[in-house]
Amino acid sequence: MRITIAQLAKRLKADLILNENRESSIKNRVSRIESVAPIEVAEENEVTFITNDKHKIALGKSRAGAVIVSAHLDGLDKPQLVVKNVNAALIEAMNIFAPKLKPVTAGIDPTAKLGHDVKLSKGVSVGAGVVIDDGVEIGQNCMISSGCKIGQNSKLGSNCRLDSNVVLHHNCRLGNNVIIQANSTIGSTGFGYSFIDGAYRLIPHNGGVVLEDFVEIGANCCIDRAKFGNTIIGAGTKIDNLVQIAHNVVIGKCCLIISQVGIAGSCTLGDGVVLGGQAGLADNIKLGDGVMVGAQSGVGHNTPAGTQLFGSPAFEKREAIRIFGLNKRLPGMAKLLKQLTKRVEKLEASEDDKK
Amino acid sequence: MRITIAQLAKRLKADLILNENRESSIKNRVSRIESVAPIEVAEENEVTFITNDKHKIALGKSRAGAVIVSAHLDGLDKPQLVVKNVNAALIEAMNIFAPKLKPVTAGIDPTAKLGHDVKLSKGVSVGAGVVIDDGVEIGQNCMISSGCKIGQNSKLGSNCRLDSNVVLHHNCRLGNNVIIQANSTIGSTGFGYSFIDGAYRLIPHNGGVVLEDFVEIGANCCIDRAKFGNTIIGAGTKIDNLVQIAHNVVIGKCCLIISQVGIAGSCTLGDGVVLGGQAGLADNIKLGDGVMVGAQSGVGHNTPAGTQLFGSPAFEKREAIRIFGLNKRLPGMAKLLKQLTKRVEKLEASEDDKK
Amino acid sequence: MRITIAQLAKRLKADLILNENRESSIKNRVSRIESVAPIEVAEENEVTFITNDKHKIALGKSRAGAVIVSAHLDGLDKPQLVVKNVNAALIEAMNIFAPKLKPVTAGIDPTAKLGHDVKLSKGVSVGAGVVIDDGVEIGQNCMISSGCKIGQNSKLGSNCRLDSNVVLHHNCRLGNNVIIQANSTIGSTGFGYSFIDGAYRLIPHNGGVVLEDFVEIGANCCIDRAKFGNTIIGAGTKIDNLVQIAHNVVIGKCCLIISQVGIAGSCTLGDGVVLGGQAGLADNIKLGDGVMVGAQSGVGHNTPAGTQLFGSPAFEKREAIRIFGLNKRLPGMAKLLKQLTKRVEKLEASEDDKK
Repeated sequence: MRITIAQLAKRLKADLILNENRESSIKNRVSRIESVAPIEVAEENEVTFITNDKHKIALGKSRAGAVIVSAHLDGLDKPQLVVKNVNAALIEAMNIFAPKLKPVTAGIDPTAKLGHDVKLSKGVSVGAGVVIDDGVEIGQNCMISSGCKIGQNSKLGSNCRLDSNVVLHHNCRLGNNVIIQANSTIGSTGFGYSFIDGAYRLIPHNGGVVLEDFVEIGANCCIDRAKFGNTIIGAGTKIDNLVQIAHNVVIGKCCLIISQVGIAGSCTLGDGVVLGGQAGLADNIKLGDGVMVGAQSGVGHNTPAGTQLFGSPAFEKREAIRIFGLNKRLPGMAKLLKQLTKRVEKLEASEDDKK
Repeated sequence: MRITIAQLAKRLKADLILNENRESSIKNRVSRIESVAPIEVAEENEVTFITNDKHKIALGKSRAGAVIVSAHLDGLDKPQLVVKNVNAALIEAMNIFAPKLKPVTAGIDPTAKLGHDVKLSKGVSVGAGVVIDDGVEIGQNCMISSGCKIGQNSKLGSNCRLDSNVVLHHNCRLGNNVIIQANSTIGSTGFGYSFIDGAYRLIPHNGGVVLEDFVEIGANCCIDRAKFGNTIIGAGTKIDNLVQIAHNVVIGKCCLIISQVGIAGSCTLGDGVVLGGQAGLADNIKLGDGVMVGAQSGVGHNTPAGTQLFGSPAFEKREAIRIFGLNKRLPGMAKLLKQLTKRVEKLEASEDDKK
Repeated sequence: MRITIAQLAKRLKADLILNENRESSIKNRVSRIESVAPIEVAEENEVTFITNDKHKIALGKSRAGAVIVSAHLDGLDKPQLVVKNVNAALIEAMNIFAPKLKPVTAGIDPTAKLGHDVKLSKGVSVGAGVVIDDGVEIGQNCMISSGCKIGQNSKLGSNCRLDSNVVLHHNCRLGNNVIIQANSTIGSTGFGYSFIDGAYRLIPHNGGVVLEDFVEIGANCCIDRAKFGNTIIGAGTKIDNLVQIAHNVVIGKCCLIISQVGIAGSCTLGDGVVLGGQAGLADNIKLGDGVMVGAQSGVGHNTPAGTQLFGSPAFEKREAIRIFGLNKRLPGMAKLLKQLTKRVEKLEASEDDKK
């Protein structure tokens, strides 16, 4: 894709503000843009963007052919595309300049294997080697890539995308616009055992998994099915790669779960919760709306809405920062304690002399 | 499945104790149960269970149609199914009311690819797109789901289950009743390199992996093959999702390894070891029988049988709890130390005055 | 494989030093070796090796039929194979005695599915159920195992190996001699969202992934594609299982990334960096050449070349060791502080008496 700055401005619904200098204005209006790039690396044929003040500083040296801004910047010898929301415009621009790929075409690959009573709405594409078991229903325009397995009676809404080799077990329900990236496993049997007569016996998992609308799951994730009822991921929640979500976990709407997080059985998360990378939750924990947990933190207790937690075991943010700081000061404290002891001994000695 | 309470009692070998009130007794005996559910959510057509005292308290408000107990509860206006072991009865009940699925039928899918000298015992099912290399032996009633790959000369006992897209490399040996969940990789080459002439060169891994009877492996796990001999998981050990087990690790019997644990090369675990979620073991560590390691803990030293470890680096439980507690008290200690210094200075000053 | 010690010595270019005793010399020269084994378990028909002093001590009791050493050991009644580099000789010996497997043969499995304009050089093998999209180029002697998916326009150099069920998305570039183990996902969409009008919207990822020559990736790893440009893994870098590498990360040459490490977006690592198991890097961190990060450590700040970091949050090694040590001494410090307070109170009291 290769368009003029004027055309780009139009597509981004941006006000195009050119340079004072008339000649370069004309040149700019017709000069062509081929992609989006960060300020540091953008070239003349690329458009860049300002989403924070660090960017503004770097902008002086940037070779970018144009810049997307939320408000006109004075004294900048560069065409500016002024938009209401730079992030939204950036997404639009990146879609405009996305690498061209042959679109996936609807239809069922001859090597796919469909069971009985499978209902496929129109526009569905089923890739090579896909196995779809009995009673599965798949909504309009879903894309099921090669090597996926969909277990009995699972139901997918419209516009879902399963990347290659995803395993979606039986009796799971996906809403609309759900994305599951490659090699993820949804509906695996949870880790629930009873120790009976000298051996661990698996507790059957009769429940399923529900992924609501606009849930997006990364690659190589595991979401276990419930023992009873369902493991539920709320609408709009996004999950990164290699995340573990155990049986009967219930996650609210618009949460962000960063890579390698582990959530143990029956945890309940409110809406807008953010879990940093490699964080862990013990089983049966409740986190209120908007709770934020730092990377590598370990949470073992229920936490009210809006709390920020750090550390393993996790403390409330302010306390955690104080404790981390004091840990750095421990050597000093130990030294001071030693000196103080000496000084007290000295005082005690002179006390005794007086007696 | 929909059966009367009386029928259920019979199948659970339970003593059915009905309400004093005669009418409701008859009603109860014939009223039907359709599933198992936890106390809080159980409805009239569901049976619930008492496995701890919290449950007892909640029981008053429960709408459950019946309850599985280990001893009769007085003054409870509900049919009670009295059993020796509630956990065992619960497993049985959940099997009775498990969602009906079409059973996997024995036979080899036409799209599966079998090598030379492959021995399949009777009752084996091989799914679509499965690849079984030369010299593989598979015992009775094994289920190999779609997309699995089994490498040369690997041997499976009876009643094993490989879920979709499991990769089991060459020269691995599974006992009987082994389960490997979807997208797990067994027998990958371990992470062993020598730095020679300015580059890392892979040390060949000539060994294999042995999974003994009743071992169960979660989804998306990795168990590396050994350099020499075998990586061994002992009989009855259960492993959760996303667990890493490195080359030449030897794990005893009936261990529980929770999700996202990492065990480095050549570690040796006794029987009945429990590793909490996201815990890590440094290489060549020996853990005695029954060692318990807390979630997110990091163990870097050999540990005698029966020890409980917490923290990263891990301390023995009692010490760890004391240290965690004192970390919380660090701010107070710092303050006290400051005050004390002032008081000592004051004392020293008045000492000097006297001179 | 079964060869005499003399033949083995020749193949390892080793000086064969036999026992003084003439008879056993002859016996040794012709006695046969069938495999390599560690000192503790090696039998008469096996060769062992000395790579550290612990080994030397164990050697006395060893039943090994021969030993690979870097310098002749006196008073050892065993044939010795003296080599320049024991590690290199060990790799050679392990290759000699590797379990015999039927070699993968070049050619395209009839069940594989190739798109348009796919270029396969000679010697390439493509396994069952593999999907190769339009415009893909694969160099000489690459092995693509069963169930792999290679996205549009991706390019592989020579001698690359993709184990079963690897998913390599579009527009990725592999150098020569790259290995990706089973169930790994390369080129997944990164975790980049903007919160717009009350919902998270995915930022398109227009970039790709570059794996340079001799990069080796373990099983069940995730390497996200870049938003702009490429996520890059430098030549000779080795990555263990279950590792997460986020979008736009740039890793130098000859790094070692141990299992379950997580590297957040846009981190830059120099050459020869070593990250211990389960370590994590916050986004946008820069690590200089040769930085070493301990297992389970969490790094949140740029770090100069050669630094060693430990802990979560990570401290420079010396400081970390001091802090860990003092944490162990915290109980003692608390007790001392209490006693000291009492002693100061006593001194203050006697002060007051004097007034």
